[in-house]
Amino acid sequence: MNTARDAVRIVEVGPRDGLQNEAREVPTDTKIALIQRLAACGHSEVEATSFVSPKWIPQLADAEPVMAGLVRRHGVRYPVLVPNEQGLDRAVAAGAQDIAVFTAASSAFTRKNINCDVVQSLQRIARVMDRARDHGLSVRGYVSTVLGCPYQGAVPIKDVVQVARVLHELGCREISLGDTIGVGTPHKARAMLEACASEVPMAQLAVHFHDTYGQALANVFACIEAGVRVVDASVAGLGGCPYAQGASGNLASEDLVYLLNGLGIETGVDLDALCDTARWINTELGREPVSKLARIENARRFRA
Amino acid sequence: MNTARDAVRIVEVGPRDGLQNEAREVPTDTKIALIQRLAACGHSEVEATSFVSPKWIPQLADAEPVMAGLVRRHGVRYPVLVPNEQGLDRAVAAGAQDIAVFTAASSAFTRKNINCDVVQSLQRIARVMDRARDHGLSVRGYVSTVLGCPYQGAVPIKDVVQVARVLHELGCREISLGDTIGVGTPHKARAMLEACASEVPMAQLAVHFHDTYGQALANVFACIEAGVRVVDASVAGLGGCPYAQGASGNLASEDLVYLLNGLGIETGVDLDALCDTARWINTELGREPVSKLARIENARRFRA
Repeated sequence: MNTARDAVRIVEVGPRDGLQNEAREVPTDTKIALIQRLAACGHSEVEATSFVSPKWIPQLADAEPVMAGLVRRHGVRYPVLVPNEQGLDRAVAAGAQDIAVFTAASSAFTRKNINCDVVQSLQRIARVMDRARDHGLSVRGYVSTVLGCPYQGAVPIKDVVQVARVLHELGCREISLGDTIGVGTPHKARAMLEACASEVPMAQLAVHFHDTYGQALANVFACIEAGVRVVDASVAGLGGCPYAQGASGNLASEDLVYLLNGLGIETGVDLDALCDTARWINTELGREPVSKLARIENARRFRA
Repeated sequence: MNTARDAVRIVEVGPRDGLQNEAREVPTDTKIALIQRLAACGHSEVEATSFVSPKWIPQLADAEPVMAGLVRRHGVRYPVLVPNEQGLDRAVAAGAQDIAVFTAASSAFTRKNINCDVVQSLQRIARVMDRARDHGLSVRGYVSTVLGCPYQGAVPIKDVVQVARVLHELGCREISLGDTIGVGTPHKARAMLEACASEVPMAQLAVHFHDTYGQALANVFACIEAGVRVVDASVAGLGGCPYAQGASGNLASEDLVYLLNGLGIETGVDLDALCDTARWINTELGREPVSKLARIENARRFRA
């Protein structure tokens, strides 16, 4: 096969980052079906759920039954979000093998969201990672607000680099740099990525864009040109933005796969199957299509 | 002022390319108000209407009253689309000073749309341009299907270059390269642009992307990196795609201005006023917001 071709790994975050920001209640069976469909599309990593307290994220209160119901595919990672040691205990009990920890580049954001500053959140993460290591878990790290914070405004690049470096030193296998509120544009995104890559190997960095201002795919393109090879995205663009009412959510996976196919970059994901899954979950949720590809009735007809 | 800053000129095509692809009937007064609002936002070029036969484009059958009702701003161009000599006569009679002619890079497309092949359409354009010169009109040239054709499929770059070169030799002041069906991705868009720039000065080239597959802004970014400084866009993303049911239309001007602001590139367009205009025309047309910025209720609140 075309093993010499350039490749990008997509981390599909729809079932977690997407659904936790959707207003609608989603049955557990639908969540499980969504995760399994996404893996069947060829995704090698599908973020399954979150062990954050249901008090904070009631949409994902069924993390245990979701994990219990999941039929795992060989070679696919199903990371789950873990906020603290209690969350870790729940994730381990539920059989998780991959976890994700999260913090932000701005203390104004962590204070509002997890009631501590960035340094304290990294200490909390260090304790989680110590125990994760004992359990043999692989850990992904999220950094939020890398291009702007809804409370603080601009975020200095050096703050992002510092948090990424600490997460790397703590042992995260990969660090996902998140433009939580979608305010970034390509040159700023690329400058931020390149600064992080001066401290953490590019191969261990991922980018995570929200499409709030329509910039997500342009930002991804700029970052791919700069060398990143892991990109987070959410099927059907699932997810909103709690900081901008009415805003679009995550970058849609199918629009991303279309881009990467056009660039001649392998993803392993079947675009037709992914579009089917996007339309299916939109129907299940009674949700209007957001992604461009899901809007097209005859997306398959044209092949240039 | 910041005269040393990099600048892009946006050609606002909403009132013509946008409205001609909207299913809704739009009152003449609304069209005139839209054009005037767009000029008031700071646009220096607003495509006003089309003198194509009303049999083909009934949406723009009111070209004469639109032109008659327009209060022109000093320094703003209001080009109108002209398909042939009859259209030119109407445009001149209506007081147009700027016209736009159009053809495509694929004869499969021109045959379906204007009932002749590309060479014949260029001959028709040559006759229009001879007479336009006599009237002292400035002429913009459109090339459709530069990255794919709904009837032919792939379009060789050399065919695009050839049509662009002929339009340039015929005296078009600017040639707009249009991805009519929105299938392009950044590397292909950039390769096509650079090939055209080897025959026509980059300063006389524009890019025109449709967002059918969500790629428009990423394509614009790649082309700006390659040196293009004129970009077509449509307020509120007005326009659909007759070749892909349900698809998004033109690149939304406000998403483009957000990108260019973020890149530190001047446009002269006030983003807040443009977002207001996008929301206004969506309301007038009873149309759901398509552009990302028009979807956000509180777009003005965040300033990173």
